[in-house]
Amino acid sequence: MMPRSVLSKCALLAQQVPLESVGLTKHGIHRGMSSVTIPPPACMLRPLEAPFRYLFGPGPSNVPPRILAAGGRPIIGHMHSEMFGIMNDIKKGIQYAFQTSNNMTLAMSGSGHTAMECAVFNIVEPGESVLVAVNGIWGERIAEIAERMGAKVHTLVKPPGGHFTNAEIEQAVAKHKPVLFFLTHGESSAGLVHPMDGVGEICHKYNCLLLVDSVASLGATPLLMDQQKIDILYTGSQKALNAPPGTAPVSFSERACHKMFNRKTKPVSYLLDMTHLSNYWGNDGKPDRIYHHTGPVSGFFALRESLAILAETGLENSWRHHTEVAEYFWKGVEDLGLKLFIKDKDLRLPSVTTIAIPEGYNWKEFLAYIMKHHQMEFTGGLGPSVGMVLRIGLMGYNCNKGNAAMALAALEDALKQCRKSKA
Amino acid sequence: MMPRSVLSKCALLAQQVPLESVGLTKHGIHRGMSSVTIPPPACMLRPLEAPFRYLFGPGPSNVPPRILAAGGRPIIGHMHSEMFGIMNDIKKGIQYAFQTSNNMTLAMSGSGHTAMECAVFNIVEPGESVLVAVNGIWGERIAEIAERMGAKVHTLVKPPGGHFTNAEIEQAVAKHKPVLFFLTHGESSAGLVHPMDGVGEICHKYNCLLLVDSVASLGATPLLMDQQKIDILYTGSQKALNAPPGTAPVSFSERACHKMFNRKTKPVSYLLDMTHLSNYWGNDGKPDRIYHHTGPVSGFFALRESLAILAETGLENSWRHHTEVAEYFWKGVEDLGLKLFIKDKDLRLPSVTTIAIPEGYNWKEFLAYIMKHHQMEFTGGLGPSVGMVLRIGLMGYNCNKGNAAMALAALEDALKQCRKSKA
Repeated sequence: MMPRSVLSKCALLAQQVPLESVGLTKHGIHRGMSSVTIPPPACMLRPLEAPFRYLFGPGPSNVPPRILAAGGRPIIGHMHSEMFGIMNDIKKGIQYAFQTSNNMTLAMSGSGHTAMECAVFNIVEPGESVLVAVNGIWGERIAEIAERMGAKVHTLVKPPGGHFTNAEIEQAVAKHKPVLFFLTHGESSAGLVHPMDGVGEICHKYNCLLLVDSVASLGATPLLMDQQKIDILYTGSQKALNAPPGTAPVSFSERACHKMFNRKTKPVSYLLDMTHLSNYWGNDGKPDRIYHHTGPVSGFFALRESLAILAETGLENSWRHHTEVAEYFWKGVEDLGLKLFIKDKDLRLPSVTTIAIPEGYNWKEFLAYIMKHHQMEFTGGLGPSVGMVLRIGLMGYNCNKGNAAMALAALEDALKQCRKSKA
Repeated sequence: MMPRSVLSKCALLAQQVPLESVGLTKHGIHRGMSSVTIPPPACMLRPLEAPFRYLFGPGPSNVPPRILAAGGRPIIGHMHSEMFGIMNDIKKGIQYAFQTSNNMTLAMSGSGHTAMECAVFNIVEPGESVLVAVNGIWGERIAEIAERMGAKVHTLVKPPGGHFTNAEIEQAVAKHKPVLFFLTHGESSAGLVHPMDGVGEICHKYNCLLLVDSVASLGATPLLMDQQKIDILYTGSQKALNAPPGTAPVSFSERACHKMFNRKTKPVSYLLDMTHLSNYWGNDGKPDRIYHHTGPVSGFFALRESLAILAETGLENSWRHHTEVAEYFWKGVEDLGLKLFIKDKDLRLPSVTTIAIPEGYNWKEFLAYIMKHHQMEFTGGLGPSVGMVLRIGLMGYNCNKGNAAMALAALEDALKQCRKSKA
């Protein structure tokens, strides 16, 4: 055989070699086998490697074998009737986890940020007023998202760890007349669980919808969507639910549905348009589900398993368990001479504990030491809390006294080993 | 113990029972264990079930055990250095699969639609002109996405199965002066592979960027991003790459980067803003990667494995193999007396074959019969091709003569069993 590369196209034609064998068709398409110029990368000829880690940061958490196995099952089609059955189960599992009877309950094909954009894009129209409580990174993010889509954004700001009184919230809602008020239930960047009671009533009094972020809190501390009159609630899969990141439960009240399905303009994202997503999830009452996008089938398998574990455990048990382990951990932290960042125990997020960075330590070196010597992830602050706190999460599968004791031992070791020589 | 539910809050207070034990804190937070009103759903107490299916539709395809195992591995953190290493591998794997040396190469945390929105949101500013070639569903989708974000959308339309000559493309580009021209390489709704040669040159001549959808074609038929002067190319994980749906490789040329990083306005989506995503993927040259969103760790494990398989196989081998199996399948289809929807063999997509719906058959019943009796997914048309075609995909792991023979046997059986009594 002559090497193809040395033959010109014309020479080959003259020899009556079929066009396809040299990679060209009569349309001039390169079906060509000789056109590849970039070789297979050497790194891809090595096997995938990932070390074992104790994921004791603010999430993702370690995924229990049972959920890993669910996510690793052979997939079915995203539009198969059995898949719709699994999605129906997920919907019921979210209704339980959120304590809501909202029909408009589903999971996003994406992480928590997808749910954030979905909520804002669908509820708010350009030019409308949005009020955002900012006491950590999540309020900052929602404000940024709302600004980009053309909302008039007002913020109510506290430093990380701060919370808002109902009087402060009412004053701001009355002043700015927002269509949407955003509040973070579990502020993972500060380790704060925000009081929720009465906030929904304030919003409804002023004809405003209440959007709540429970990514870091769901399953770890009480939250009751319907009773607390939350209009839009979302969470993530990778915190106390212990599924891999990539799906995000979300639910909309009837009031929220009324607003988002009576818009004058289309939401800016086709992918996140609830008109389509509600059909995909069988929530719009129509007999047929029309193809919209391809959902993460494996991710939904894993999410269903994680919601099943929560249903089996029971919300009350899960809340109680997280509180008990957190209290055990908090006592241990204080016994080490460390200071908890959130002083008021009732405002501490059980799932993510924040510790004031101890004097005489470089927090980055402190965390790197623990990662290296204990294979354990703790993290620093996030957004406005960077440089203020260390964050340690014990969520769901990771939430037990054994892990808390291991985390305390790692802290104790790092406190001994990482003190700066010239503090 | 007295049942808590029969005791009023006041009665409990009078007994000096600690507030927390009845679920209230001094902030009025319901930490309450007695507040759950929606019970665990019965469906979630049953195990996850999903049947085995031959996924011979246009995707998702069956996922090989090796990729399932990668996706089912214990996860690590989305910001761990080892995760960044895996993302670097993915980037190199995509560069190989796309045949590009573009630095701005990454995977989206979402399916193909996420890549579509990412491309349009980042490249186009409101009011700018976009030209979309519509010859199936994907052009329709891009047009919808671009309209929503405020672009002036022009379309070049052919019925499903049609393709555009370079003269037609040049005429439209010259007329509408778009900043972006969209073309689908593998139109899965029609089974068409579109000629690409010369299109990039036309776009560049008129200072227009070329955006190409290769979701259904990548790995199955030649496509050479750099040589064919494609500015933005995306694909999906769940077609010939055989990973579960939920990630989407995408790459931007330097010209595309110049346009998107010199915008006057911010992209409407924070989540899809390439300024942030390029940092997350280590493509912006900055020393630190800042938290943006939590990527689908398991999905990235699976995507890396799928790209590794392609690198081991070799693109040329993969293209040749898909063509050989497709030609075997096409011959079998014609031997059954069925008509291939795309007449010109050189324009047929090897990964997704479209068959004209045979006379005397109800296509929905035909497909339902095959699903029920052969556990095999074929699909009907999509968007404008609904009611025109049956679609059968043999991609990547599914692409072999054994599967083609099984699919042909199922077709033969359905042709015998599903003829309408009163055709």
